[in-house]
Amino acid sequence: MIQFKCVFCGRRHPADPMAQSCPECSEPMLVDLPADGRSIRQGDTPLARYLDFLPFPEVDDALHMGEGDTPLLPLNRLREKFRLPPVLAKNEMVNPTASFKDRGTVAALHVAKARGLRRIGTVSTGNMAASTAAYGARAGMETFVLVKEDTTEEKLLSTAVHGARLIKVTGDYGELGRQSFALGKKHGIYFMNSVDPFRVEGYKVTGFEIFETLRPRGSWCIIVPVSSGGHLIGLMKAFIEFKEHGLCPEVPTFFGIQAEGCSPIAQAFASGRLRYARVGSHATVAQSIANPSPPGGNIALKMIRELGGEILAVTDEEILSAQRLLAEEEGLFCLPASATTLAGMLKLEGQGRLASGESVVLVLTGSGLKNIRALPPQPSRVFTSALPDLDRLIASLS
Amino acid sequence: MIQFKCVFCGRRHPADPMAQSCPECSEPMLVDLPADGRSIRQGDTPLARYLDFLPFPEVDDALHMGEGDTPLLPLNRLREKFRLPPVLAKNEMVNPTASFKDRGTVAALHVAKARGLRRIGTVSTGNMAASTAAYGARAGMETFVLVKEDTTEEKLLSTAVHGARLIKVTGDYGELGRQSFALGKKHGIYFMNSVDPFRVEGYKVTGFEIFETLRPRGSWCIIVPVSSGGHLIGLMKAFIEFKEHGLCPEVPTFFGIQAEGCSPIAQAFASGRLRYARVGSHATVAQSIANPSPPGGNIALKMIRELGGEILAVTDEEILSAQRLLAEEEGLFCLPASATTLAGMLKLEGQGRLASGESVVLVLTGSGLKNIRALPPQPSRVFTSALPDLDRLIASLS
Repeated sequence: MIQFKCVFCGRRHPADPMAQSCPECSEPMLVDLPADGRSIRQGDTPLARYLDFLPFPEVDDALHMGEGDTPLLPLNRLREKFRLPPVLAKNEMVNPTASFKDRGTVAALHVAKARGLRRIGTVSTGNMAASTAAYGARAGMETFVLVKEDTTEEKLLSTAVHGARLIKVTGDYGELGRQSFALGKKHGIYFMNSVDPFRVEGYKVTGFEIFETLRPRGSWCIIVPVSSGGHLIGLMKAFIEFKEHGLCPEVPTFFGIQAEGCSPIAQAFASGRLRYARVGSHATVAQSIANPSPPGGNIALKMIRELGGEILAVTDEEILSAQRLLAEEEGLFCLPASATTLAGMLKLEGQGRLASGESVVLVLTGSGLKNIRALPPQPSRVFTSALPDLDRLIASLS
Repeated sequence: MIQFKCVFCGRRHPADPMAQSCPECSEPMLVDLPADGRSIRQGDTPLARYLDFLPFPEVDDALHMGEGDTPLLPLNRLREKFRLPPVLAKNEMVNPTASFKDRGTVAALHVAKARGLRRIGTVSTGNMAASTAAYGARAGMETFVLVKEDTTEEKLLSTAVHGARLIKVTGDYGELGRQSFALGKKHGIYFMNSVDPFRVEGYKVTGFEIFETLRPRGSWCIIVPVSSGGHLIGLMKAFIEFKEHGLCPEVPTFFGIQAEGCSPIAQAFASGRLRYARVGSHATVAQSIANPSPPGGNIALKMIRELGGEILAVTDEEILSAQRLLAEEEGLFCLPASATTLAGMLKLEGQGRLASGESVVLVLTGSGLKNIRALPPQPSRVFTSALPDLDRLIASLS
């Protein structure tokens, strides 16, 4: 029997998609899997292999879009350039809607379908909107997506194309997130937002895959961008559960990275506070992790402290430099939000905080194609030539 | 010993990346693998499994970015909606740079690296430019990308980000493609263009994967967009070789689809001509397959006739409708070029040309994120609301 459990007060409650917050603490709850014998199964898909650790009894093939089993790519050119320890990128950009969100969406949709729900929703400004709309379409759900009023036309289009009902909402975005659950309950819409307990379970699968591909010996670490906190929480939970079941010897060291322009959790971590303070005005190039009141922030803080990890912030300059390095040296064009991982690694390395033999995994969360206009112009690399003059131009570039 | 062979005159020539056209026929040549015992190997990656059928002796792990092993997804909602035979989508959108081009790029780069070449190039307006630039970066190559002068800023950015030297060339685009080989020879740049013989070998892998995943019984068909012809040629070659080696019983029926607004190969097919006529002015929403003088057009015509397939054209209206159907019913947001496959299928089905039990595979070649501005606006699905009015709006949408 699956229940929700509050990370703060430890109380358990029925696992109800429509009632996700602890009635006592008002914090989001997480899925509590009873610790009886669970193991890794044989299977063609990650959901099938890790089903024992997921909050639904069977895999629904109709929901599968090929999410997961993403590559773990060694970044040897960057390693050499900066004399780094072994560094690998978990490339979540090749999920069906080009971001890690698909991992969580497919898990939450399994729960929705198993419970006979026909309407789903999400509150998002980008990747989660497109992911929920795409999977909602494939599952034949009626999908509601609530976005900030100033969401870009590109992001609206890549969500609306899936036939979702898309509502631009004026007003406080954090408040919208909280109110969505009451509206969902009233209108029978399961809002699978960023720290939805079932969505978080889907993110565990990424952690399981990393561990099974890498089979690390000795200490190692995972670096992941932090917005709402849901992704980091899921990854940490994966290793806590694998360790409980004797499937991995140690939990890796986690580093969660925020953008300095909007870093409430990193600020709380640095100052030793148990709870983050909501950020007022904020600005960063890493739009998709600019979350001034992250719903999973307090849980993430508590869990990462217990595990001995850290949440830190990097500057926009460091982020854009890292984005360019990943594209130029390794052929990986990711969102600025994803590039925070390399920026964070270089910062930690500069502080002498990474042991030389330690493996480092960067989780690249979303494709650069999603926000191509965030790229600074690179005029020095673009040339113009008439066909007859091309010979001379190429010679001059050589 | 690997050689090039002309599909028209049958003559063989040394397999030289810098000399790809038949000196007698002026047509591009294809790789000629001697027909000694080849088999499917065990391996973690598609290149490792199908190495016996590829034009390089070993897999270079440093070039691997996770290309291939893409999902073959049943499209059950579309099947039901239109009472279709079993239809599946080979989702090439989840390759590392979000298009099928990566399959060819990684194959051609294996050849380049094995031969000690340090400079590569391509002539492209979009997907191939980004793919070549990304893999070129990862391989540490000096990469030259020649594009049409009017290439959009988005496409320039997603190529330039990888550090490629990007040259906008004014003049005839077909002529640029031809001249690139002479320039390449002079400046030591291996131009891996759309019908590069080694690139085409990479496309075979998609065919091998489809066959091994589907293991079809009875007749079946593959539907693929046609631009230069290179992709279709590679897919056909895959099955010809598998059949020669007793690995598949029959070659499936191939349907190549062009956009009516630029359909030189489909026109030649319909009128029974052996060679296509260059198209003058052209316009279609399927920009990435708008190729008025496709370099592989004549080879594709010859091969598909010999195999009993067909090349046909669909209208922009049919393409946009198919793009929307794939997104709304199956959660797959592809380029208009990719949606030609569903449009073609619906056309063939309307003509009673698909047997009821026949499996149909649509090859979805590239992500809709690559040309998000091609989407027609969908204002009817986007609503605006102040937070206090959201309750009423949702009720009215229910």
